[in-house]
Formats: sequence, structure tokens, C-alpha cells
Amino acid sequence: MSQKAQKKPELPPTQAIEQDFDLRAKTQNWFEYPIVVHPHHTDYAGVVWHGTYLTWMEAARIEYLRSIGIDYAELVNLGYELPVVELALRYHKPLSLGMEAIVKTMMAEIVGVRIHWDYRIESRDTQELYLSGRVTLVSLDRAAGKIMRQLPPSVKEAMVKISR
Amino acid sequence: MSQKAQKKPELPPTQAIEQDFDLRAKTQNWFEYPIVVHPHHTDYAGVVWHGTYLTWMEAARIEYLRSIGIDYAELVNLGYELPVVELALRYHKPLSLGMEAIVKTMMAEIVGVRIHWDYRIESRDTQELYLSGRVTLVSLDRAAGKIMRQLPPSVKEAMVKISR
Amino acid sequence: MSQKAQKKPELPPTQAIEQDFDLRAKTQNWFEYPIVVHPHHTDYAGVVWHGTYLTWMEAARIEYLRSIGIDYAELVNLGYELPVVELALRYHKPLSLGMEAIVKTMMAEIVGVRIHWDYRIESRDTQELYLSGRVTLVSLDRAAGKIMRQLPPSVKEAMVKISR
Amino acid sequence: MSQKAQKKPELPPTQAIEQDFDLRAKTQNWFEYPIVVHPHHTDYAGVVWHGTYLTWMEAARIEYLRSIGIDYAELVNLGYELPVVELALRYHKPLSLGMEAIVKTMMAEIVGVRIHWDYRIESRDTQELYLSGRVTLVSLDRAAGKIMRQLPPSVKEAMVKISR
Repeated sequence: MSQKAQKKPELPPTQAIEQDFDLRAKTQNWFEYPIVVHPHHTDYAGVVWHGTYLTWMEAARIEYLRSIGIDYAELVNLGYELPVVELALRYHKPLSLGMEAIVKTMMAEIVGVRIHWDYRIESRDTQELYLSGRVTLVSLDRAAGKIMRQLPPSVKEAMVKISR
Repeated sequence: MSQKAQKKPELPPTQAIEQDFDLRAKTQNWFEYPIVVHPHHTDYAGVVWHGTYLTWMEAARIEYLRSIGIDYAELVNLGYELPVVELALRYHKPLSLGMEAIVKTMMAEIVGVRIHWDYRIESRDTQELYLSGRVTLVSLDRAAGKIMRQLPPSVKEAMVKISR
Repeated sequence: MSQKAQKKPELPPTQAIEQDFDLRAKTQNWFEYPIVVHPHHTDYAGVVWHGTYLTWMEAARIEYLRSIGIDYAELVNLGYELPVVELALRYHKPLSLGMEAIVKTMMAEIVGVRIHWDYRIESRDTQELYLSGRVTLVSLDRAAGKIMRQLPPSVKEAMVKISR
Repeated sequence: MSQKAQKKPELPPTQAIEQDFDLRAKTQNWFEYPIVVHPHHTDYAGVVWHGTYLTWMEAARIEYLRSIGIDYAELVNLGYELPVVELALRYHKPLSLGMEAIVKTMMAEIVGVRIHWDYRIESRDTQELYLSGRVTLVSLDRAAGKIMRQLPPSVKEAMVKISR
């Protein structure tokens, strides 16, 4: 898949963001998470229920984080969380029972406290696009119940690594 | 809640849409669907998992349709469907175990083949906003597997009624 | 519905249980929780997916507890939990999209640390039986991570009330 | 894991079953399906919600069938289904966020029209047992809406193969 087609318009990074993160948090590659449609994913129409996609998108995100050295469960134990604060999805074509597909995700950009992730769910041969969208997270300090202006150190470090 | 604050910028209705639907498909009032947070709605953080909201939003939509005389199961039996094609949500504040809230929805506007529904999930006293968003549906002819340029007659009729 | 048909064979209450609970934890009536089948409850077969019933059974149980003065979220805040440790279900007939039914539940008996709940999911006119089963809970002390030999005082008190 | 511990008491196969199936539908080995606990699997208690296990058990069953040459989606297209009619589970120990485990399943026996599957969910080193249980299916002719006295030919053939 061409990266060009996916590129989001570059937001001019402000001084503030540079100071906060000191990184260009844009991964250059999609992380790929394969899925198969089982009965419990479907609805009466024989296709995947629209909310089911969120379980796969979350799984892809967590496994992507693991692949760059961030264990989400550990992060939670340390007192952090990365809750979803925004969601924008387009359902292009339905997946039906028994079909296989690839959930592609990448951390697209960090704007202030918002961490944007891009998604595409495609057929294995990349010829079919089933879903495209963006999920936005923030870092939360669980004890304080407050959004953090900085990423937790372990996350930041992992991201600095992939951004170089 | 002020209706004004919720009003979406009015799209100029094109001639084509006027001919297709002969209605101003904007309901003036929110349909209210009360919910309570049970254990299966929550995740490890003790709050509602972000995908759970979609089950409540769907329930509110189906019950709203029923309230204006459209039985969704009957519609499906007649060979129609109203699948979700777009989704845009903002999570303002989390709901946690045991909390009660109201899912508010209204059919906001019909633009071409797209039927837009607006949503707000609020506390019963309307003082807290948990989620706001928009869900977009199309009418599908199940046998043909094609998006319909016109709403199914029974749906259209019910909508004409509420729009007067 | 006849209570007779539902009655489980009476276990002879042991001395130990008498001492522990000092109550006959058998409610005489079913608690009724009405449900409607929405799209997200169904699977490719157009009927309710077999796991969906557990969400309704949980909801019925929590609302039953609320009806006898036990707020489950409050119980959790106090450091207790009532996790499911056993499950036995029979699916007699499927519910399909748009159908309404009643989830009936009652606390059937307490045997040692096990709290057994009986379930029936029936049509509103009680002519159709969709599911029957039993769910078994224990009381858990969250901080200690241990099964409690006695129910939390607030739960016990509420149960003593209904058992008289 | 010792097979002995898992062996269910052998029901004497009736003449009818012999004629119907002409096979000893007992696989000798567990099929293993690895899982990881993601946020959407958990509830407020930080552990897997009791209904979530059913999604994994279904996935393991479908993938097991695929491994012996039965494509479940194809079976559905041919007009058959294998709905769950009985369920009996014991929750021994909870799985929590981030944990990995193995869902083990095998077709245990066929008794009349009932196909019994045994399950164990264990840690990767088999030292911890999280869940054990049995799920019972029947073969359904979708068009007729009737339980089939014989398995669909393709399923039967695959099973005869593994039973030798």
C-alpha cells in the first residue's frame, strides 16, 4: 500500500508541542493485525456488527504498543491509561462470516495532549477497503483522574525510538 | 438543554433531495433512552468501555424508530436495512459502574442517501455530558445489496408524519 | 407460571450453613426483567447469539439486587464482589430480532459459600421458554482476593428481610 | 495434561447412534487456541468478564473445525448451522488484563443429536486452570428450522477421518 495515499495533511508543529514531546511521533509504517470473522462478530445481516470493529481496533493498538516495547497492562499497573476520547470511522464495505482481513494501524500524530491513530481494515491482498478511521487517545493519570500534559516516560521513550 | 446549542449548520437542501424525500427530515425533539451501567458494560478502568456506547446508541435509535411507528425487525423482513456507514464520537466524561444516564438521539438531517442521527449521552439532570456524536445510516436493499436512493415507503411515510 | 415446576429439590440445610447465614435464602418469587432483541444482540443466523443472554441475565440479577435494597456498585466500592463461578444453561428456543421476552430470576439457595440463582427466559405470555439455567456466585473480598465465608453484612441483611 | 483427568464417563452408544454416525467422534487431542486479554475483555474488576470466555470458546471451536477441513461459513452457506443448546462452565480462576492463556477444546462425544465439546482454559505452562466446561451443539437445517438426526455429510466425513 502506498504511504502517500494515507498521508494526513501535516499540521505545523507548534513550539509548545515540540517542548512537550521532543519527538516527531509519526511512525512510518502500518502495524498489521490479522482477523477472522467468527459468529459472535456478526449480526442478523450476516455481516460484522458495526461496533465489533472497535474490539479489533483496540486489539491492534495494544499489540502495536507491545511490538514497540510498551506493555499496556504494565502501564495500567503503573497508574496510567490511554482512554479513547474521539472516534471517526467510515464503513466502506461489510465483512461477513468467515472472511479474513488485516487491521492496519499507525500512530499518526500527536497534537497537544491528543494522540491520533489512523486505521484501515483491508483484505489481505489490499484490494478491498472495509473501514477507515481515526481514533484519538489521551494519557490519563489514573490516581489523579487527570489528563497528562506529557506522555508517561516509558511510552515517550518507546515513541522517541520509533520516531528516529 | 438548549436546542440551539445542538443545531447543526443547515445544509441548503438541493432540488434532488426535495424530490426524493418531500420532507424536512428533522425531528424537533430528542428521543430519550435511559440506561444504567452494569458490570458487562465496564472495563478494567471501572468505567464504560468505549465500544459499549454503540450498543446503547443503537438501542436508542431502534426504540426511537419504534416510537414513530417503524418496527425495525419488520423492515428487515421486508428486505431493507439501515446500516451504519459513518460514525463520529467524542467521549467527554466516563460513565462508571452503577451510574444512570440518558441517551438522547434525533434524526438530524437527510443529505442525499445519508441519514444523519445526532446523539448526546447526558446525566438525568442534564448537567453532565458524557458523549456527543453523529451516526450516519443509509437504506439498503438487502436482496440487491444496493444502497437505495429512496427510503423504504413505510419509513418515508413515518418520517413525513413527524416532520409536520 | 407455576412455582411448583420451578422448585429445586430441597437440600437439607447443614448446621454450618445455618450458623453462617441464619436465613432461608430462598426468595419465593421471580424477579422479572423485560428485554427486546436489538441488532447487536443477534448473530448471522438472525437470532440472539448464545453469549448475549449472559448480559441480560447479569442485568436482571443486578436490578433484582437493587429492588431488595442492594446497590451493586456500592457493594463494589465497599470492597466486595459477587463473581460468577459456575454457569449451566439450556437454550430451548432462539429469540430473534425485534422479539420481546422476560428474563426471570430468583436467588434459589445458598449452599456453603455458593449463591445459586435460577433463570428462565420466557415470552411475555409465558407460553414459550427460550432459556433456563442456573448461575452460581460467591462473595469475594476484593482487597484480600479471597472468597468470604459470610456474605457482606448489607447483603445478608437484605436477604434476611426477603426470606421472612 | 493428562487425558485421563479429562475423560468423561463413557455413555453406552446406542444402536441408533451407531447407525446415524458410524464413527467414534472422539478426538484424542486438544486443539489449542491462544488468547491475550485486551481491555474490551475485562470488566470493572480488572479481570475478564464471565461472558467474554464464550467468544474465545466459539473462536477455538470454529478454528478447530477449520483445522479438520470444515469451513463453518461454508457450512452456513450450504444451509446448516451448529447452534449451542447447552452450556456448563466452571470459573476456577480469573484472567486479568494483559495475561495470555490457551483455550483447549476437543469434540468429546456425540450422543444422539448432541455434539459435546470439552473445554479447558489454561496458562501456557498448563500450571493454572482458569475455566473448564462443556458446550453442546446440534446440527440445524436452516431452511427447515429443524434439528438434523444426521450431521451434514461434509462434517460427518471430516469427523470420520479424525476418529480413525
